[in-house]
Amino acid sequence: MSLLVVGSIAYDSIQTDSGSVENVLGGSAIHFSAASSFFAPTGIVGVVGEDFRKDELKFLIERNVDVSGIVTESGRTFRWSGRYHADMNERDTLSTELNVFEHFKPRIPESYKDSEYIFLANINPGLQLEVLRQVHNPRFAALDTMNFWIEGSRSELLAVLKKVDAVILNDTEAQQFCGEHNLVKAAKAMALHGPRIVVIKKGEHGSILFHDSSFFVLPAFLLESVIDPTGAGDSFAGGFIGYLAQQKKLDNGTLRQAVAYGTCMASFCCEGFGTDRLAAVDKEDYTGRFIEFQKLVNF
Amino acid sequence: MSLLVVGSIAYDSIQTDSGSVENVLGGSAIHFSAASSFFAPTGIVGVVGEDFRKDELKFLIERNVDVSGIVTESGRTFRWSGRYHADMNERDTLSTELNVFEHFKPRIPESYKDSEYIFLANINPGLQLEVLRQVHNPRFAALDTMNFWIEGSRSELLAVLKKVDAVILNDTEAQQFCGEHNLVKAAKAMALHGPRIVVIKKGEHGSILFHDSSFFVLPAFLLESVIDPTGAGDSFAGGFIGYLAQQKKLDNGTLRQAVAYGTCMASFCCEGFGTDRLAAVDKEDYTGRFIEFQKLVNF
Repeated sequence: MSLLVVGSIAYDSIQTDSGSVENVLGGSAIHFSAASSFFAPTGIVGVVGEDFRKDELKFLIERNVDVSGIVTESGRTFRWSGRYHADMNERDTLSTELNVFEHFKPRIPESYKDSEYIFLANINPGLQLEVLRQVHNPRFAALDTMNFWIEGSRSELLAVLKKVDAVILNDTEAQQFCGEHNLVKAAKAMALHGPRIVVIKKGEHGSILFHDSSFFVLPAFLLESVIDPTGAGDSFAGGFIGYLAQQKKLDNGTLRQAVAYGTCMASFCCEGFGTDRLAAVDKEDYTGRFIEFQKLVNF
Repeated sequence: MSLLVVGSIAYDSIQTDSGSVENVLGGSAIHFSAASSFFAPTGIVGVVGEDFRKDELKFLIERNVDVSGIVTESGRTFRWSGRYHADMNERDTLSTELNVFEHFKPRIPESYKDSEYIFLANINPGLQLEVLRQVHNPRFAALDTMNFWIEGSRSELLAVLKKVDAVILNDTEAQQFCGEHNLVKAAKAMALHGPRIVVIKKGEHGSILFHDSSFFVLPAFLLESVIDPTGAGDSFAGGFIGYLAQQKKLDNGTLRQAVAYGTCMASFCCEGFGTDRLAAVDKEDYTGRFIEFQKLVNF
């Protein structure tokens, strides 16, 4: 296995100005692997309930995603429901049912333990640490987190930050973690806790990369129509880490291109509900978008 | 005269997390010309009161800014006071005293009437039209506007939009004008009203250029410390139009470089209160920042 993601698998119910959907496949591990699988063989570790419709993973399996690390527990699959504002950087959570995800204890299958690249999606930092204990010397590990863990599990989060190469999080989370509004200061402060690569996502405003004392900033890919941004951040992470796993390099130029591929993947994610658009994308689509993106920002 | 700006001249009192200042030189025409004068001889048309301290214009005069179009009326100079939030895209206006600016009727001096490049800063769109009637066939005219005119003087604004080459405005203003949250759609809608160049400013999140059916997006220049963003939008416009006036070209490549120079000027503006920082910048500073900016966004 080249790339391992540990995270949520969910059924999402989503309302946006473009419409609404009920119980569509989602969750961080799904959105991540829908993007990363274009670049590197990806294995998922996650949990679903007895209600889970396994045939929905078909598009991932066709892209060589290994789903043998998805375990079924008795009970229902994690469900989330939310409504986006016209400003899609804002959303209201209508309901969260953790269900089988509440007692998720990631067990890394033997065949995944040699994974060279690892993404610890947004789960309890204590569990993120557990995952790192189970794998053998990965070349690169990255984590995402959220306000809930920043507030409630700071010491565990600090412990796992020491052990990863990269942190990928939202601007508001970076600001909250560091108690600092300025993102340059926040990125530098995050790096002092361990990760030598810090990526701050700003939703429709793009992202910032901090690495080796230097910054890189990219806007988002401009879209005339955003259908549903759910999973865009995980699709970004999938494009970013997937590209790194493909290139097997971590120099500044490769990291910048990885941010650009992540941005392209996030833009596809936003063009449909759930995984609709990313499931339909092919290599021609994303290489074309990468070139279009270069033209969009070049001066 | 190469470049003419018509706008406000003010004394600003400003509070930010970095400190506070009282009655510092400001206003759109001042911030604009502090930036544009690096690139092209600039003439100001504006009004001040009897309390205005003319020696404060010295740094502009030294950069060949023609201040002979600034008239003194009996009464006090326009004053604005405001307080910025930690998120500097947000501010509260504490007081606005229009004073002599309330009855500002721009009269373009004979020596300015052949100006080739014109910036109509944020004033009543009826007055912007009056300015265009007084000048002879400029090569390029651009305007800025604000929510107050979009709400209250829409027909005059539509009339002047038909006569300009470019509109430069904030994201919230473009959204309000078009009744459209998506900035791609908003930019296209703005262009249908006349201007073939649309620049949407997003504050700390950068800007979007729409021209000749194509888009260009740039983030802001990353700053570790923002002292005072007052005037950043006008400094952006000064760098943008100043560079166009210097290059005497309006092709897509030149427009993109102009956006980048505008972004650099806005970043300098934010590094001090009022015009403090832009008054101290020299050619080495801004050419250095332009190169640094290219490195910051290149992939």
